[in-house]
Amino acid sequence: MSELSEQIVNLGERSYPILIGSGLLKQDGILDPFVGDADVFVVTNDVVGPLYLKMLNALLGTRRIDSIELPDGEVHKTIASFESILDRLVAGRFARDALLITLGGGVVGDIGGFAAAAYQRGIRFIQVPTTLLAQVDSAVGGKTAVNHPGGKNLIGAFHQPSAVLIDTDTLVTLPDRELRAGLAEIVKYGLIVDAEFFAWLEVHAAELLAREPAALHHAIRRSCQLKAAIVAEDEREAGRRALLNLGHTYGHAIERCAGYGAWLHGEAVAAGICMAAEFSARLGYLESGDTGRISALFTALALPTSAPKLGVDDFMAAMSIDKKVVAGEIRLVLLHSIGSAEVTADYPSAELAALLAEQLVR
Amino acid sequence: MSELSEQIVNLGERSYPILIGSGLLKQDGILDPFVGDADVFVVTNDVVGPLYLKMLNALLGTRRIDSIELPDGEVHKTIASFESILDRLVAGRFARDALLITLGGGVVGDIGGFAAAAYQRGIRFIQVPTTLLAQVDSAVGGKTAVNHPGGKNLIGAFHQPSAVLIDTDTLVTLPDRELRAGLAEIVKYGLIVDAEFFAWLEVHAAELLAREPAALHHAIRRSCQLKAAIVAEDEREAGRRALLNLGHTYGHAIERCAGYGAWLHGEAVAAGICMAAEFSARLGYLESGDTGRISALFTALALPTSAPKLGVDDFMAAMSIDKKVVAGEIRLVLLHSIGSAEVTADYPSAELAALLAEQLVR
Repeated sequence: MSELSEQIVNLGERSYPILIGSGLLKQDGILDPFVGDADVFVVTNDVVGPLYLKMLNALLGTRRIDSIELPDGEVHKTIASFESILDRLVAGRFARDALLITLGGGVVGDIGGFAAAAYQRGIRFIQVPTTLLAQVDSAVGGKTAVNHPGGKNLIGAFHQPSAVLIDTDTLVTLPDRELRAGLAEIVKYGLIVDAEFFAWLEVHAAELLAREPAALHHAIRRSCQLKAAIVAEDEREAGRRALLNLGHTYGHAIERCAGYGAWLHGEAVAAGICMAAEFSARLGYLESGDTGRISALFTALALPTSAPKLGVDDFMAAMSIDKKVVAGEIRLVLLHSIGSAEVTADYPSAELAALLAEQLVR
Repeated sequence: MSELSEQIVNLGERSYPILIGSGLLKQDGILDPFVGDADVFVVTNDVVGPLYLKMLNALLGTRRIDSIELPDGEVHKTIASFESILDRLVAGRFARDALLITLGGGVVGDIGGFAAAAYQRGIRFIQVPTTLLAQVDSAVGGKTAVNHPGGKNLIGAFHQPSAVLIDTDTLVTLPDRELRAGLAEIVKYGLIVDAEFFAWLEVHAAELLAREPAALHHAIRRSCQLKAAIVAEDEREAGRRALLNLGHTYGHAIERCAGYGAWLHGEAVAAGICMAAEFSARLGYLESGDTGRISALFTALALPTSAPKLGVDDFMAAMSIDKKVVAGEIRLVLLHSIGSAEVTADYPSAELAALLAEQLVR
């Protein structure tokens, strides 16, 4: 058993810990303080369930447990999947004091979290993320959602978990492509608030790709720490939390226009961040040396640095239904330098059109 | 234009006013402080829309407005209706700063409110209740939901409106049966916290049934005042707010077992309250003089005082999936006297079974 890190997300009476370590899913009693003697319903998928559900059930002991295995993939992040969870909760007569556990990646966490938010107007839940992306990003902060055919994460709720349990051993079974997708969100934290962490990532890129445990542990811990601090400051994304959307408005449009599932979220975010950097440079905010460092790091992490060929009009339409639109304007995250960013709708829209024309058709 | 009453629901930064008066839907500018220059999406139904939508649109002036007319009735309080609203919000590219208005009864308010809670993880909304039941109960307090085939209001959210606008003139078009259903919830307030109000209702029952404006205005104002105070004390129903469920666990079971739509919610609540009173008397809490006054008032208001013939097992199953179940026990509201009630799971379950056997088969 390796080092156990604990980060607290400080949200007053809704505060909760993020537990990070190797072998946590084998650590007897680790969930007891959060579960009590509640009935438990586990939401997982048909890839992760066969690998880790037994282990989770063993941790839960003699409590009443039921579970659902959703089909794997972003394409199933739908209201229909959300309903299938609710049907099972009702059929199993789970009461308002029951607890839901999500075991899987971001899709499972987002759908399961939204079901927990809506069932009986909200029951408690615990996130057990098993992908790198979910561990460093989607499992922390209480955003839950499903997709609408018209746009990503358009239907959901803010619903904070009671705890996040990150067993880094689960990364052993993660496909390379998904590991890389998670690294994209890790890079994001360096870019928006922590230049030193970005520099550390430049040095340790190869170790991360090789799944060197100490490097992964540090990257996860630091990412959770940075995210927890931002969420504690601005739970409902009234201001600063929007920095976490760096590259995401472009990224969501890539995911939607390429067809959900074709690009992994983290891949789309990597390309989207490069577009955001390019736009920041075009507006004179970011130096070209910095855009070079950014694309070099994504290249070192074997992540895409540009969008695929897509229709500009479709892309623009997808960007404008994204949740960052306020008063008719698309709010974007611009980089000032590595480690410093701002959210703004104050940019020349002709420049955005020019960027898309250049980036999407090349 | 008659007297305008304003009650405030005190919830810190989520506080909002309840505006009550005659002719409010014709009062230019009354919604401006809450709407600002937001795009507006109106949720109504095919009975209320033709009567009042034009009037509401005129109040909203030149703002961008779109609307949906759901089919009328509890049977349409479904996830499918919720989805149809979301589809329209997405198709109309409504952004996170848009505002939703519900115009109609409790069903419209509950579905529309839940759509506002979930769209883009929450947009602002205003309740414009046009039935007596919605005006005195469902439009106030932030509970939103849709039904599940397995139980009423099982899927939803707490999402407080930005304002509640009650134009008492809309009651002119309300069918008698629905007016009476609303009176059931008004009686409830007297029973749980205000003996003096209950006595006032006994005296003014005939005036209320005859829709005498001054009597209706007083009953609505006092009900909103009492509900606002309870909600302010316990927004998320951790304790005292559960008093508002007097008769509702029985009532929800009646609605479900009789088939949604066969009994109006208020009718089921009246019968449910009589069952709750009977149970309280059976346990020695309530004097028989009081049970007599309660059923006499409901009779005077032409409301049912007992459940229809139903299967005891089905009824018990419906009661136990209701949201008041904690730690495997059905929490019920018991009356100590008129004006005084408590929530408890501490009663002999054999007595509950005996009550159901007696009440449901007679």
